[in-house]
Amino acid sequence: MSTIPAPQSPAGDVTEYVLTLVCEDGPGIVHGVSGAVVGIDGNITESQQFASAETGRFYMRLQVTSPASAEQFEQALAPVVARHRIEHVLDVAWRPRRTLILASKATHCVNDLLYQRASGHLPIDVPLILANHDVIAPLAQHYGVPFEHRAVAGPEDKAAFEARVLEIVQEADIELVVLARYMQILSPELCEALAGRCINIHHSFLPGFKGANPYRQAYARGVKQIGATAHFVTTDLDEGPIIEQDVIRVDHTRSPRELMAIGQDAESRTLRQAVGWFAQSRVLLDGTRTIIFR
Amino acid sequence: MSTIPAPQSPAGDVTEYVLTLVCEDGPGIVHGVSGAVVGIDGNITESQQFASAETGRFYMRLQVTSPASAEQFEQALAPVVARHRIEHVLDVAWRPRRTLILASKATHCVNDLLYQRASGHLPIDVPLILANHDVIAPLAQHYGVPFEHRAVAGPEDKAAFEARVLEIVQEADIELVVLARYMQILSPELCEALAGRCINIHHSFLPGFKGANPYRQAYARGVKQIGATAHFVTTDLDEGPIIEQDVIRVDHTRSPRELMAIGQDAESRTLRQAVGWFAQSRVLLDGTRTIIFR
Amino acid sequence: MSTIPAPQSPAGDVTEYVLTLVCEDGPGIVHGVSGAVVGIDGNITESQQFASAETGRFYMRLQVTSPASAEQFEQALAPVVARHRIEHVLDVAWRPRRTLILASKATHCVNDLLYQRASGHLPIDVPLILANHDVIAPLAQHYGVPFEHRAVAGPEDKAAFEARVLEIVQEADIELVVLARYMQILSPELCEALAGRCINIHHSFLPGFKGANPYRQAYARGVKQIGATAHFVTTDLDEGPIIEQDVIRVDHTRSPRELMAIGQDAESRTLRQAVGWFAQSRVLLDGTRTIIFR
Amino acid sequence: MSTIPAPQSPAGDVTEYVLTLVCEDGPGIVHGVSGAVVGIDGNITESQQFASAETGRFYMRLQVTSPASAEQFEQALAPVVARHRIEHVLDVAWRPRRTLILASKATHCVNDLLYQRASGHLPIDVPLILANHDVIAPLAQHYGVPFEHRAVAGPEDKAAFEARVLEIVQEADIELVVLARYMQILSPELCEALAGRCINIHHSFLPGFKGANPYRQAYARGVKQIGATAHFVTTDLDEGPIIEQDVIRVDHTRSPRELMAIGQDAESRTLRQAVGWFAQSRVLLDGTRTIIFR
Repeated sequence: MSTIPAPQSPAGDVTEYVLTLVCEDGPGIVHGVSGAVVGIDGNITESQQFASAETGRFYMRLQVTSPASAEQFEQALAPVVARHRIEHVLDVAWRPRRTLILASKATHCVNDLLYQRASGHLPIDVPLILANHDVIAPLAQHYGVPFEHRAVAGPEDKAAFEARVLEIVQEADIELVVLARYMQILSPELCEALAGRCINIHHSFLPGFKGANPYRQAYARGVKQIGATAHFVTTDLDEGPIIEQDVIRVDHTRSPRELMAIGQDAESRTLRQAVGWFAQSRVLLDGTRTIIFR
Repeated sequence: MSTIPAPQSPAGDVTEYVLTLVCEDGPGIVHGVSGAVVGIDGNITESQQFASAETGRFYMRLQVTSPASAEQFEQALAPVVARHRIEHVLDVAWRPRRTLILASKATHCVNDLLYQRASGHLPIDVPLILANHDVIAPLAQHYGVPFEHRAVAGPEDKAAFEARVLEIVQEADIELVVLARYMQILSPELCEALAGRCINIHHSFLPGFKGANPYRQAYARGVKQIGATAHFVTTDLDEGPIIEQDVIRVDHTRSPRELMAIGQDAESRTLRQAVGWFAQSRVLLDGTRTIIFR
Repeated sequence: MSTIPAPQSPAGDVTEYVLTLVCEDGPGIVHGVSGAVVGIDGNITESQQFASAETGRFYMRLQVTSPASAEQFEQALAPVVARHRIEHVLDVAWRPRRTLILASKATHCVNDLLYQRASGHLPIDVPLILANHDVIAPLAQHYGVPFEHRAVAGPEDKAAFEARVLEIVQEADIELVVLARYMQILSPELCEALAGRCINIHHSFLPGFKGANPYRQAYARGVKQIGATAHFVTTDLDEGPIIEQDVIRVDHTRSPRELMAIGQDAESRTLRQAVGWFAQSRVLLDGTRTIIFR
Repeated sequence: MSTIPAPQSPAGDVTEYVLTLVCEDGPGIVHGVSGAVVGIDGNITESQQFASAETGRFYMRLQVTSPASAEQFEQALAPVVARHRIEHVLDVAWRPRRTLILASKATHCVNDLLYQRASGHLPIDVPLILANHDVIAPLAQHYGVPFEHRAVAGPEDKAAFEARVLEIVQEADIELVVLARYMQILSPELCEALAGRCINIHHSFLPGFKGANPYRQAYARGVKQIGATAHFVTTDLDEGPIIEQDVIRVDHTRSPRELMAIGQDAESRTLRQAVGWFAQSRVLLDGTRTIIFR
């Protein structure tokens, strides 16, 4: 569907890697890591780092082109990794992340994710959309993405749905679960099982509203800004580390229905942005904060 | 596809009308028009007006619920229309406007328009998408919109394409033609034939760039904001009255490819907004400016 | 200090009025009011109206130029006011509102208000700045605004401070009290005495944080948007009707100190905007919501 | 005037340095530079780099805390600087840059710069404000900044004014010249003499307008976004490398006067941001583009 060429691969036998790492802050880390890059004839094409005053930890993200294999890169990194007790992930840049989408009835977020993927702007593979309603089926079919419908009428259905989630995660080696307006609350067990790899989107307003029908509350209070927050799922409902937020200006003439349309647009864009950053290894966790290496 | 209920019709035998009018500014216009509304037991649910210091003209848009028929409303308006030499249009609010979409290869604007229409957020009917490439065919099919492909290889093809446009406009009683990234320049004759009912979208930057490959130029100059402008088509290429503009912040790390992805998102949203306002009779022309009654 | 000419007065003996009104919604209001305008040879230069689905009430704001006196305008309005039980305020457009500024140590909001007033962009007169600290004295002196310092060390001081506020409000016939980062909580009695004419500014974030040191909390949670909310003061602390909100994008690299600088800029602009709209009679109350007739 | 504490100096005998560098891109640069940092027991607190696909050049900015002196740091850098033919600047972080402000009649940009400096948010020292009008004198006096007025009535005055600029630049060892709405066109000679250290602010719109009275042109065309662009001064008038841009949404109801007020606010904030980044060594030139290391 897309007329846009994929990001150009580096020429010849060169691979572009993305390396993310975290460790205690201290002198010599950058020097050690960049020495490993030199050791594999690598060239740094992008680099970001951040030392957290909050946690005393050091975060780094590198994109490196090199003729070396991943094994050779790992070997070159081994001494510095050991010396600074670095936790690291080495991957191929732009590799599509295996992504499970959970959905309910709302189509706006799923439509946006699938369109952006088809346009070549979002490096994700979607082996399955799992939903507790069937309205998304035609959309999935249009984009050629497998779709599975499991109704959730009671607690037993919910347990079965969640068991199915974990099954897919294991079978398809899922790297990211996206709650694309999936309207069921995840059990604490599932939250924990998916910690750090499950992104949720929800509406947000200035000031924040809790409870049912937030667009109604926002309307009643006369808010002038509505928006959306994409965050990692934790057992604290809607309180996980924030990945991205966006707001749109509104005024008193907007009906609750119009507020909802505007909010849905904000949700789509905010979720897309968060998923895109995650898929490019640009999101790191610093305690309860995210580091976004844009 | 949408889970959102359509705008509620007024109860019983009441109709919601939208009335737009323009005339020389002067005393008594609002009094006269509101008198006509009183005369048909109408209730004003929305009203905007603007007196242009530039042109000395007065613009007004009303939404009115009334048990009267359109004929009765017209009769009630007739004396004030005559007295102030008012040009006016009376229509049913929220009536979908018959819209012809012209397209080429790019899918982003068409996808957004069709999705928003299907979601119930955009009151347009699309009897046909006419394109000089066939890549949009599957998208049209998914949304159940007729699609016609006519290649444009030379001047004769172009004349035939434009003749077909005029034919559809007449046969299908088209009210709005949307150039959704249609990459052919319209002939002056077609521009004139569609004056005031043809909307185009194009990229825009701060500062403006003319000529080929604007994303390349913007990249070279290091712009910090890129955006999109939706405007009425006139014989002055890309210089017609502006309906809507939007911008997104960028920085030096963005490649031309990324600038294009960001620009396409801005184009989709800006075009959607302009089409939505037009379809709700919210766009009036004041010389070279638009009055937008949001 | 300003090089910008003041808004041009209408020519000759013509006065520009601003009329705001509210009543139960129903047919004939606009017709009646516009009839009164016709009756004084008035010309409507600006008009907005809004019918609240929430409260069933109708709000209107008019700017009218007319050779008539205010008394003649009132007489012309009297029948329609009586017929629709309209509450209304008639004033001269652009008349500077008598404004009391309360402050503490922070200078950013006071500096912005005084600069904008001196530049001719903010139609307020400031007979006094009353503060519980003296750091603002030089700023007040620079702009030629009287300044009074009253320390608030304990409950008795606070009662005396508030008594002084009420005294000034009465003596100087104050129309608006602005809490320009005044860091004392007003007593319920003072809130009530100033209901609908006292504007406060406070920081706000997505999501909202309560309690001490919000910039610290926002930093810890890693928010991506910080902003400010200007609202009417009610006895519900920071929960009054919202007049204006603004947000600015931030990321993980911003220190709490930088977040504060960004937040202060948002506060200054948001408060200035709210005060400006109030001073032009553009802010009406609809229950717990504000109608902003921009 | 400020109640905000200055950025905390690192403890003990440690200095925080800022190092910026540029050279041909190639392997080993980061490793070499970080080796120099290790050699002086330095700790990298902030680091950004960028390899320009446009020019093939590599840009880097580091903040480093170290017990070493600047001379020791330079000695440690010498081998890698020679090896990669690096152009570099080593400075003390947060050191206020010596800044000459040129002004005319408009006060908004000067007021904002002086207020932000006094609040501790803008690390600049201003030994002089030089203006071709005297309206800014009281403002300068309030902030305790020397002010010099030189009228420019004809070509000879202008030459004398520019000679005085160069004299101050030399005598006061000026690092940055800010044209804070200085309304005279600089001679090509002065542009060249100040290349890379002279920042101008001007209005900007979507689309761009050239020539006199741009707010009038923008009004006539009905633009929906107005903004400001801060850029380095080059001999191409208003065409130098862009440092920062900002836009604000407007609509048809705004008079040219209101557009000007909105535009002035955009100008103040945009210029402040550009000056702040320059003063923190965050602005590097990549041909006709700027690299902004925020």
